Amino acid sequence: MRMRNKPWAMDFLQENNSIVDIDSTYSGRVGAFFPDTGPLHVEVGTGMGTFITELAKKYPDINFVGIELDKNVMIRVVEKVLESGLLNVRLVLLDANAIDAYFRNDKVSRIYLNFSDPWPKSRHEKRRLTSRSFLEKYSTILDEEGLLQFKTDNRGLFEFSLISLNSYGMDFHEVKLDLHADEPEDNIRTEYEEKFSAKGNKIYRIRASF
Amino acid sequence: MRMRNKPWAMDFLQENNSIVDIDSTYSGRVGAFFPDTGPLHVEVGTGMGTFITELAKKYPDINFVGIELDKNVMIRVVEKVLESGLLNVRLVLLDANAIDAYFRNDKVSRIYLNFSDPWPKSRHEKRRLTSRSFLEKYSTILDEEGLLQFKTDNRGLFEFSLISLNSYGMDFHEVKLDLHADEPEDNIRTEYEEKFSAKGNKIYRIRASF
Ligand SMILES: C[S@@+](CC[C@H](N)C(=O)[O-])C[C@H]1O[C@@H](n2cnc3c(N)ncnc32)[C@H](O)[C@@H]1O
Ligand SMILES: C[S@@+](CC[C@H](N)C(=O)[O-])C[C@H]1O[C@@H](n2cnc3c(N)ncnc32)[C@H](O)[C@@H]1O
Repeated sequence: MRMRNKPWAMDFLQENNSIVDIDSTYSGRVGAFFPDTGPLHVEVGTGMGTFITELAKKYPDINFVGIELDKNVMIRVVEKVLESGLLNVRLVLLDANAIDAYFRNDKVSRIYLNFSDPWPKSRHEKRRLTSRSFLEKYSTILDEEGLLQFKTDNRGLFEFSLISLNSYGMDFHEVKLDLHADEPEDNIRTEYEEKFSAKGNKIYRIRASF
Repeated sequence: MRMRNKPWAMDFLQENNSIVDIDSTYSGRVGAFFPDTGPLHVEVGTGMGTFITELAKKYPDINFVGIELDKNVMIRVVEKVLESGLLNVRLVLLDANAIDAYFRNDKVSRIYLNFSDPWPKSRHEKRRLTSRSFLEKYSTILDEEGLLQFKTDNRGLFEFSLISLNSYGMDFHEVKLDLHADEPEDNIRTEYEEKFSAKGNKIYRIRASF
């Protein structure tokens, strides 16, 4: 997801620091970021934020944390949250590499990865959000019953991820190789999902636990 | 695979008992079925036998055992082996349920399942050749480095199999979600593979070990 650079991005995010954490203020105390207590669900790489805001509308008793690296993209998510008036979505400007430190004192019950960057070259394997070192981090923050859900249309990345999760010893709960063929009622399509599905790509999904 | 019943089937197979074992003569001593010693590869549910005979031509130092339940189908495989003059293919009229007993004294280095019957109804789950009880049997006959390879175009069966193999603790070596998109040079297409690929279906393949 590339967005034009907005020079005012950091100022805008700073002004909205009740919604978005830009300097890890809530690191180690993520629960305190929300007005109400509740289970924590985390999306890594929110993009424009359609998924997390729709999910938050559907499940008002769950607290959703959206992690996004790109400040220019993050602006759009903040705008969506402001418009919606949702109190159960908070955003963090963070590299997923730091996810374990950020959530070190909070237990997460679900992690969502949607259409993560594929990094097709093998020398970039470690950057894929389903590679071993990321799974290690997720495993430290997910609670006992916690689930990792991953959706993509990228065949190579999904093949890699099946092997990576299996090799890490994760338990597969569900695998869908054409999610939209018989789309589950509760599926929320992301921006990339709409776009790539319209192009005729199959959408893959896996749910797995540690 | 349904074939017209041939009343002379058993007579024909009996006449060719140097190629096909119809009464488990070689149970517990499969090596003795072959003129030469060599690693054993087994295909379960050969269908018409294109796959196993082509593979046997390519790898003359490996001994291939084709298991097939249906005597009318088996006739076609026997004919193929006779025509080819191959000495490294032997056939067994057997239900895959008895595979562990048949190979109890022989170590197998590879098991191939190709386009196995999908048994889509959940009450028939146990009949699927990748269900838990079959995996148990395969695990007793495969050697340490042994590999199970499974191909299908059936999405439901492949989704089920990914979960079943993972849940059994098998290690995934390779997963292909569109085998023909970049078809490996050494892929041998089965009869079903040709047919379903021509219909536009994706071909899935997994290689896994215990
Ligand atoms: C391909 S986009 C997908 C966006 C959205 N999830 C969707 O499905 O439409 C990937 C997003 O992940 C973000 N991202 C990539 N690597 C990241 C990382 N290491 N940490 C946090 N976000 C990351 C990118 O900035 C981008 O917004
Ligand atoms: C759908 S056909 C596929 C044939 C072939 N492998 C191909 O890919 O073209 C499945 C074959 O497996 C055989 N089969 C089914 N269940 C079996 C079992 N339990 N034991 C041995 N063979 C079986 C059937 O008789 C049939 O020939």
